[in-house]
Amino acid sequence: MAGSTYGRYFTVTTWGESHGPAVGVVVDGCPAGLSLTEEDIQVLMDRRKPGQNKFTTQRKEEDEIQILSGVFEGKTTGTPISMMVKNKDHRSADYSNIMNVYRPGHADYTFDAKYGFRDYRGGGRSSGRETIGRVAAGAIAEKALKEMGITLESRALEIGGVDGADRDALEKYLQAQMAKMDSVGGIVECVIHGVPAGLGDPVFEKMDACLAKAMMSIGAVKGVEIGDGFQVARAVGSQNNDCFEADQNGNVTKKTNHAGGILGGITDGSDIIVRAAFKPTPSIAQEQETVNRQHENVTISIKGRHDPVVVQRAVVVVESMAALTVMDLLLANMHSTMDGIKKFYDK
Amino acid sequence: MAGSTYGRYFTVTTWGESHGPAVGVVVDGCPAGLSLTEEDIQVLMDRRKPGQNKFTTQRKEEDEIQILSGVFEGKTTGTPISMMVKNKDHRSADYSNIMNVYRPGHADYTFDAKYGFRDYRGGGRSSGRETIGRVAAGAIAEKALKEMGITLESRALEIGGVDGADRDALEKYLQAQMAKMDSVGGIVECVIHGVPAGLGDPVFEKMDACLAKAMMSIGAVKGVEIGDGFQVARAVGSQNNDCFEADQNGNVTKKTNHAGGILGGITDGSDIIVRAAFKPTPSIAQEQETVNRQHENVTISIKGRHDPVVVQRAVVVVESMAALTVMDLLLANMHSTMDGIKKFYDK
Amino acid sequence: MAGSTYGRYFTVTTWGESHGPAVGVVVDGCPAGLSLTEEDIQVLMDRRKPGQNKFTTQRKEEDEIQILSGVFEGKTTGTPISMMVKNKDHRSADYSNIMNVYRPGHADYTFDAKYGFRDYRGGGRSSGRETIGRVAAGAIAEKALKEMGITLESRALEIGGVDGADRDALEKYLQAQMAKMDSVGGIVECVIHGVPAGLGDPVFEKMDACLAKAMMSIGAVKGVEIGDGFQVARAVGSQNNDCFEADQNGNVTKKTNHAGGILGGITDGSDIIVRAAFKPTPSIAQEQETVNRQHENVTISIKGRHDPVVVQRAVVVVESMAALTVMDLLLANMHSTMDGIKKFYDK
Amino acid sequence: MAGSTYGRYFTVTTWGESHGPAVGVVVDGCPAGLSLTEEDIQVLMDRRKPGQNKFTTQRKEEDEIQILSGVFEGKTTGTPISMMVKNKDHRSADYSNIMNVYRPGHADYTFDAKYGFRDYRGGGRSSGRETIGRVAAGAIAEKALKEMGITLESRALEIGGVDGADRDALEKYLQAQMAKMDSVGGIVECVIHGVPAGLGDPVFEKMDACLAKAMMSIGAVKGVEIGDGFQVARAVGSQNNDCFEADQNGNVTKKTNHAGGILGGITDGSDIIVRAAFKPTPSIAQEQETVNRQHENVTISIKGRHDPVVVQRAVVVVESMAALTVMDLLLANMHSTMDGIKKFYDK
Repeated sequence: MAGSTYGRYFTVTTWGESHGPAVGVVVDGCPAGLSLTEEDIQVLMDRRKPGQNKFTTQRKEEDEIQILSGVFEGKTTGTPISMMVKNKDHRSADYSNIMNVYRPGHADYTFDAKYGFRDYRGGGRSSGRETIGRVAAGAIAEKALKEMGITLESRALEIGGVDGADRDALEKYLQAQMAKMDSVGGIVECVIHGVPAGLGDPVFEKMDACLAKAMMSIGAVKGVEIGDGFQVARAVGSQNNDCFEADQNGNVTKKTNHAGGILGGITDGSDIIVRAAFKPTPSIAQEQETVNRQHENVTISIKGRHDPVVVQRAVVVVESMAALTVMDLLLANMHSTMDGIKKFYDK
Repeated sequence: MAGSTYGRYFTVTTWGESHGPAVGVVVDGCPAGLSLTEEDIQVLMDRRKPGQNKFTTQRKEEDEIQILSGVFEGKTTGTPISMMVKNKDHRSADYSNIMNVYRPGHADYTFDAKYGFRDYRGGGRSSGRETIGRVAAGAIAEKALKEMGITLESRALEIGGVDGADRDALEKYLQAQMAKMDSVGGIVECVIHGVPAGLGDPVFEKMDACLAKAMMSIGAVKGVEIGDGFQVARAVGSQNNDCFEADQNGNVTKKTNHAGGILGGITDGSDIIVRAAFKPTPSIAQEQETVNRQHENVTISIKGRHDPVVVQRAVVVVESMAALTVMDLLLANMHSTMDGIKKFYDK
Repeated sequence: MAGSTYGRYFTVTTWGESHGPAVGVVVDGCPAGLSLTEEDIQVLMDRRKPGQNKFTTQRKEEDEIQILSGVFEGKTTGTPISMMVKNKDHRSADYSNIMNVYRPGHADYTFDAKYGFRDYRGGGRSSGRETIGRVAAGAIAEKALKEMGITLESRALEIGGVDGADRDALEKYLQAQMAKMDSVGGIVECVIHGVPAGLGDPVFEKMDACLAKAMMSIGAVKGVEIGDGFQVARAVGSQNNDCFEADQNGNVTKKTNHAGGILGGITDGSDIIVRAAFKPTPSIAQEQETVNRQHENVTISIKGRHDPVVVQRAVVVVESMAALTVMDLLLANMHSTMDGIKKFYDK
Repeated sequence: MAGSTYGRYFTVTTWGESHGPAVGVVVDGCPAGLSLTEEDIQVLMDRRKPGQNKFTTQRKEEDEIQILSGVFEGKTTGTPISMMVKNKDHRSADYSNIMNVYRPGHADYTFDAKYGFRDYRGGGRSSGRETIGRVAAGAIAEKALKEMGITLESRALEIGGVDGADRDALEKYLQAQMAKMDSVGGIVECVIHGVPAGLGDPVFEKMDACLAKAMMSIGAVKGVEIGDGFQVARAVGSQNNDCFEADQNGNVTKKTNHAGGILGGITDGSDIIVRAAFKPTPSIAQEQETVNRQHENVTISIKGRHDPVVVQRAVVVVESMAALTVMDLLLANMHSTMDGIKKFYDK
């Protein structure tokens, strides 16, 4: 498969650039009979909007989602769901300072190296606007999962080392960085409740392997961990093993959850915990040394409205990618046993 | 695709359990004309052998690789390469203490939850022996990459927090843990040299996303990072951005490599740096609380020869998965431009 | 992958129903640097338009294609190309006679059996309008192939047993069938010139296997053949084998082409010849016996503007599917030899 | 995916050449809990053996199947099932007359064109022995399908135009062809009973499209048809449409089955009927004109034991490919509706 499709069963194909006429997504493999409206999707879409606080860009992006296929009389039909958001803000602008220069930390140089040329108007395909398709698809996955009793909770755990929930400390920290014309990164955590035991495969399609790819496929993510994550490298087995115990109803539970809900790549019924580390936004107004398309050394200072931090806006993207992954493996797992298949077909 | 296949172009399918007659792998999509002998593969195979130091299991595992297809007169033919290693050590043993009990930190419970029953003789499909197939396939990928000037270097960066290169400190630390009947984890790092700029796709098939999945698909890995990894979450943009500069030959290089060789999911021509965090081996002789198949609370103490640490043996597995990933994206990248395709077909 | 995606490298995902707001397609994996305009695509689109002769429906379908992404400054960027055609003719109509009844020869019953309900406004996802996406994608493939010296030629070989090129006989035959309120089928042939030897794989991804799937995935196709096709079943080897001969330049050619350009699944450099048999349009005004959603026996007579024959309109669909298939295997073949890869990367 | 893997869910990867040490297959995605022994597989394997009548080669091929993984205590475990057959008859032989010459009707030339060289000892990867893996995998699929009430029946419908069931006429015809040192083709038909309505997707993954690929992926097949097949091209709609009717129990049935059990790509609950046309065996003892590797015109006469007809031996291969296809789409269909998924997970 070419590189803009995610998922093997619940399949998501995003398309569109920041400065083209529109961005969108096709979701193929969504089961028939799920109630779905544009409002269901807009709720998640709005969580990734900028302009929600003073540290994200003040552009007005309405990002109104439109469903073009796959829903009939308020229900999914089982056929591809095509969704689109028009790019309202793609008026002709002055790109002269970036069209010819490789911005540090951006994909400008690597796009040229790969494709021979690039759409120099903003991030092109690497723009944050590509995530609109992910969130629209994620909203459908989340709705389907909810009907199965599976819910997702996600938040900015840390921003630049500051507790993401401590608004006062955060505001102070971000003000200081903005004054220095700098940018910051952070960590997003997603916890998935209610996942039945048994999802994920024991070898390459492990639940954690799929989540790792999902997270690392988000622009700016440089690290992913499950459960105790990197801390396990310094733990000992007697601490790190989660002891099983039977609850009053005879169900198998765990006394701790260092494993983050996954053992041997397969969910164990406890919460799945995944974290992604985001690098600081590469667009900064400070002057930086770099190279132009003619491979001459130059300097660049990136003007314009740029988020000094994208972590809060990325929370819903992390959640969407997690939802898509769990949905995909939930479908995959239906093939695991002959008994399950025979029961399904009533044989 | 079912869950035992890795890669889209250079495709690897592993099979086999620890206590079946054999384990093996089929590599499909290997280009024709690569010189290949069983010795080429055995070199990497031997790096994952136990018994190389006193802290790994003393079992004699010869693990002699056999090529069954796809090589003719010393060269790959372009058709599937089937390789197999016989399991010599699968004599009937006494599994009575584990066949009925869910070992903490192992996949016993999750296998039962998924498949309704499990091969209780050792790790089954989750055994470390499954990695034999990965390493055999990785050896082929590494050989092909070497012909392209791409080489991989990997090592145990940390074991239980101790510098993996400090043998004295390490021996002391491991002795202490063994005395406590405990086990330890660690961090493996792989650096990939000579990768041309342009590999990887900008959206879901990012080089880093693919590496993340590759690493997290290895049993016991709970975290993955690229370049500065989790540290980026506390860095600022002006530090974290790698400035480009042109060298004397007019080639684009970077002054630093915080990005670990990947920008926007696409390689930038500098070294790719990836790290994986391994949890402590779950098999420990200490008594642990757990549950049996009847969902009764019991205790278990795991006897037998178990590695208190698998990190050193896992180094070559990390390297193999990295090689498979780079090889796959090297092939994928051949489709990137019309000019490249026309030059290939001489049009 | 879910079922609306075709191709492994040059990947096409169609979406949309006959009576939704639009139909469209996302083409992912198109190489960068191909000159492309909406006009390039419209040319093929216009070949599938109805109303081109008196035997196809007289509806006015403008079907104006719109490119929404993946093209910048007149060239493909290597990222997904999203294309869309608005459904102009989806005004509220009276579907009372079909919403509750299973039309013979249509997919009404099977959609209900699969999805639990269906979009009863026309063919839904099984409508001929789904092929708009195929043709738009096929136009891109055909343009790329042309730059490689590969061209496609296709035609209605037979319509209802009448020579598709004999307009007089054809008109007479079709008039007679229309007078009887009946419909007819036919055979479409596509010949592909200039395909280099070596495309296609020897086992499951044979060129002919891929073409067979491509053809049979077109609604109404019930048979596919390559070269001499079903006639080979009654031929003897000494006739059916194509003898090789060297031409003046020392190139390998064949004296005959019973094989239709494919040997062992791999192209041999001669013309590829593929034929598809189309069934008569199932919508006929004659009264037919059938069953309704309540599983009661009823009769139905299908009113409205329906093509008594779709074969001519399907010619460009056959050609598009053939172009997509050849393009896909052309890309796949770039991985066949180490020499080719090393030359590509200049090693 | 590389080209030796078939199926998206029930995934089959074959490997091996006619003259290597072994041929085999890995089946991944087989549900856990299916009773399976080597005998189950041997039954189908024996149906493809040569030497069953005087017109097939008299070589003794024992072809004893060995299961190497994925089965524990007589049941499939849900993990990959690796199976292998040793090539007993690959003693060093004299290939001097074929190693340097392109046999007409064979893949010798196309292999060289694709891979730069080839395994010249017999058919290599294009050998009929590759089908051993297909049949072994097909035997598992058939066993699983049988538990769902789905059975397959297949036969040689025609051999060289002679009724495949008329042994006397057939013997006479084959004797005559052998006397002329010629070979013959034929038609194989497979009928699949008991398939529930709803399998297959409406667009690219139509049941008939998948069957067409499956059939055409068998060496020597040049045509595929479903139901009335090519005859539909000369039928009229009023004949070709199958009228529905409700039976006494209120189930939807069809009065006729011109459609071969598939409408709009989705099964309708009646028998699936598929036919494949096989070309005459290309290896004939008659002298043929051809070209050698140096591209010089030469003649060749192919000595040795060659089947003058492979149609009877191919029957079980057709059946196996059909079984694999139905099994795959049976699994795919489990994702079709939210109701089905919720029922599966008991929500």
